[in-house]
Amino acid sequence: MPRLLIVGAMAAGMSAASKVRRLSPEWEVTALDAGEDVSYGACGLPYWLGGVTPSGSDLYALTTEQIAERGVEVLLRTRVTGLLEGRKRVEAEDLRNGRTREEAYDALLIATGARAVLPDLRGLDAENCFSLHDFGDGRRLHRFLEEERPRSAAIWGMGYIGLEMAENFRARGLTVTMVNRSSQILGGVAEPIRDRILDTLTDHGVAVRLQSEVREAMRSGDRITALDTDRGTVNADLFLVATGVRPATDFLRGSPLRIDGSGALRPDETCATGVHGIWAAGDCCAVRNRITGQWAYVPLGTTANKMGRVAGSNIAGVRERFPGIVATAIMKAFDLEVGITGLSAEDAAAAGFDPVTVDVEASTRAEYYPGGGTASVHLVADGRGRLLGGQICAPEGTKGRIDTLAAALTASMTADELASLDLAYAPPFAPVWDPLLVAANVLRSKLKNR
Amino acid sequence: MPRLLIVGAMAAGMSAASKVRRLSPEWEVTALDAGEDVSYGACGLPYWLGGVTPSGSDLYALTTEQIAERGVEVLLRTRVTGLLEGRKRVEAEDLRNGRTREEAYDALLIATGARAVLPDLRGLDAENCFSLHDFGDGRRLHRFLEEERPRSAAIWGMGYIGLEMAENFRARGLTVTMVNRSSQILGGVAEPIRDRILDTLTDHGVAVRLQSEVREAMRSGDRITALDTDRGTVNADLFLVATGVRPATDFLRGSPLRIDGSGALRPDETCATGVHGIWAAGDCCAVRNRITGQWAYVPLGTTANKMGRVAGSNIAGVRERFPGIVATAIMKAFDLEVGITGLSAEDAAAAGFDPVTVDVEASTRAEYYPGGGTASVHLVADGRGRLLGGQICAPEGTKGRIDTLAAALTASMTADELASLDLAYAPPFAPVWDPLLVAANVLRSKLKNR
Repeated sequence: MPRLLIVGAMAAGMSAASKVRRLSPEWEVTALDAGEDVSYGACGLPYWLGGVTPSGSDLYALTTEQIAERGVEVLLRTRVTGLLEGRKRVEAEDLRNGRTREEAYDALLIATGARAVLPDLRGLDAENCFSLHDFGDGRRLHRFLEEERPRSAAIWGMGYIGLEMAENFRARGLTVTMVNRSSQILGGVAEPIRDRILDTLTDHGVAVRLQSEVREAMRSGDRITALDTDRGTVNADLFLVATGVRPATDFLRGSPLRIDGSGALRPDETCATGVHGIWAAGDCCAVRNRITGQWAYVPLGTTANKMGRVAGSNIAGVRERFPGIVATAIMKAFDLEVGITGLSAEDAAAAGFDPVTVDVEASTRAEYYPGGGTASVHLVADGRGRLLGGQICAPEGTKGRIDTLAAALTASMTADELASLDLAYAPPFAPVWDPLLVAANVLRSKLKNR
Repeated sequence: MPRLLIVGAMAAGMSAASKVRRLSPEWEVTALDAGEDVSYGACGLPYWLGGVTPSGSDLYALTTEQIAERGVEVLLRTRVTGLLEGRKRVEAEDLRNGRTREEAYDALLIATGARAVLPDLRGLDAENCFSLHDFGDGRRLHRFLEEERPRSAAIWGMGYIGLEMAENFRARGLTVTMVNRSSQILGGVAEPIRDRILDTLTDHGVAVRLQSEVREAMRSGDRITALDTDRGTVNADLFLVATGVRPATDFLRGSPLRIDGSGALRPDETCATGVHGIWAAGDCCAVRNRITGQWAYVPLGTTANKMGRVAGSNIAGVRERFPGIVATAIMKAFDLEVGITGLSAEDAAAAGFDPVTVDVEASTRAEYYPGGGTASVHLVADGRGRLLGGQICAPEGTKGRIDTLAAALTASMTADELASLDLAYAPPFAPVWDPLLVAANVLRSKLKNR
């Protein structure tokens, strides 16, 4: 019986495990994970912390029984510390007793995901300072919220996690201050989108300090009392550091697997690493951006799940390919939905395009149908009209419009083609000119008058 | 000054008028319309009748002032009765005094739209029997609802208008019975979609009688008291006949303009009819289905608006093309959203494809995020995996998913390509496997195992 060893029992790893067992039941499949949890929806952690999702156990995607039924062995609290690829083994440490052992494989899938990166600042190891990446982080923060009943939170970083946690801390009644190094948020959304997000935060009582460099975490005993920035001091009972993640690939240092500058593996379309018998999938990998053809590090659960299936299929001998991403993402910031796909103008310029952008505002429903709102649509195209990216924020309908744009980007559509798409219309759902079509028409005019 | 005469002052006609005036202010533009209203959102009539949209005047897309500002002359209550293309004139009747006159043109745009078709049955001219196509119909029905306070309505026909009016009659507290000739609804949606619509109607207290042939409209004086069907009698205070529409092209009989079997004009991609100086756009036209390449009669406001712009642009000498439709539509039936795009399995077989279909159910949000529901997704592909069509019903998110599918159809994507689309994910908006991706994966498996 050949043995597939999977390092990481999260989205990518468990998708691959299920796929292999379904396609080739002759494989023995074992997943090792340093954590205590298998296959949970990490994206749900903010909503559990905010009380929207009542129980942490709701986040599990697979039960222990389902995993057993699929014939997958999972060894938790087991950290893989090294790769012995010559002997087809990994070195693993049992975190319960500190003992190390070797585990043999015929095929190895690296699906270790990412880990939160803390800024290089002393004092962040305080008992009231948190990051939020895995279930362990979530449990620690949940316990603190329940037991200590903090009244205020400071969030360092205005990416997805920071913004989602601002909403969820507010849902628990905490006062919230956000601190951000630059004036850009969410990795650099266009100004009209950024301004609406900032307005929404203000409307919901979140204090925002942009362009604030944190200089010191001021401690009193085991706790941080304030972050000292170049624009003043931020006091809080609780500190969340949400400044980014990195691929969890440290254990591969010195191995023949190539790691890029961001720390990511770069498997091919079949998820093969180029080292015989070793595959990689999920947040520990860079992926191809389908618009630029270039590598990008965009760790997202959807990508991890797709890659896991592809890896599993190929390991089982059924050829499948993962063609890459266009980098689509969505988030809810209070009553505002923010969606992003493709390249920003800055990305596009960096990739060698000569980008043209438009920003429009349009109604999300027929004007006479109650309950709608204003969608802000930002489109990016190259000089010949080929779409390169887009960003949308609105109180509703954003997921569908950003997905439509993602499909258009995948198909290399032009502004003309977007403008003639046959999109659904009825008064409760859109105006007769959908905001995407309005934006496409404005973009066409701008391109013609260049 | 060259003169553009537009027959029909609705979506297509007024879009064209605005476009011509913007691109070529040297044109004199006059629109003639038999009705009393310019450029209103006919799709909003059900919501005005249901009280969702408070005032009928909310439905106007352009005010009289806006029309005047654009330099467009509109002559209402003026019915065009004949075409004298040899002399570049039309014959028009002033409905206020019955006088006829001729109007000259340099370019003529036919944008007369469609008209409701009543079944060939005696007695439908009763004062409590209505159709609902134009604002005049809407006002007549609104007046009856307000003045007579009917307590029950019977709706004949289960297309968009019938279903939307069922919801809106219920919103006013009327009991509602729907009568339908066949067992198919909405032009023949797939069974799982149909069954959910029927369940929704039942849940909201609407009585449905399928496969019921209406034999007689039973009258008492000026009113219908009941519809007699082969499956029993349907009594009501008010009767709405919503059995379909036809292109309003009767006045072209005997002219050199070619009318197809459905009564529709078939202009080319520039909206030219082939008769010099005469253009056509909107609901009086058939359009190309982009999937089959065949002509189809699918009168929809979005198409009319797009065609109007294209016609106006070409009339003004700026070449634009309308590439056709994939036949996307959406409707709200109480708390269920129903979206359709592309071909049904029956359409596909009729067009010479060997269709493969799948039906899946999937959650609209992450399972642990509250407020979601179940999406039913029906996909149609040809034997090699090319997508041909889809239908979705769900309590939320349908517009975006059907639009994404419409974009995929437009780009001739396969099930494989759909399955690898980078769609947006966050717990409030979708599960990590979007219902579209779930359906695409099931379709791929089915195609492989054929």
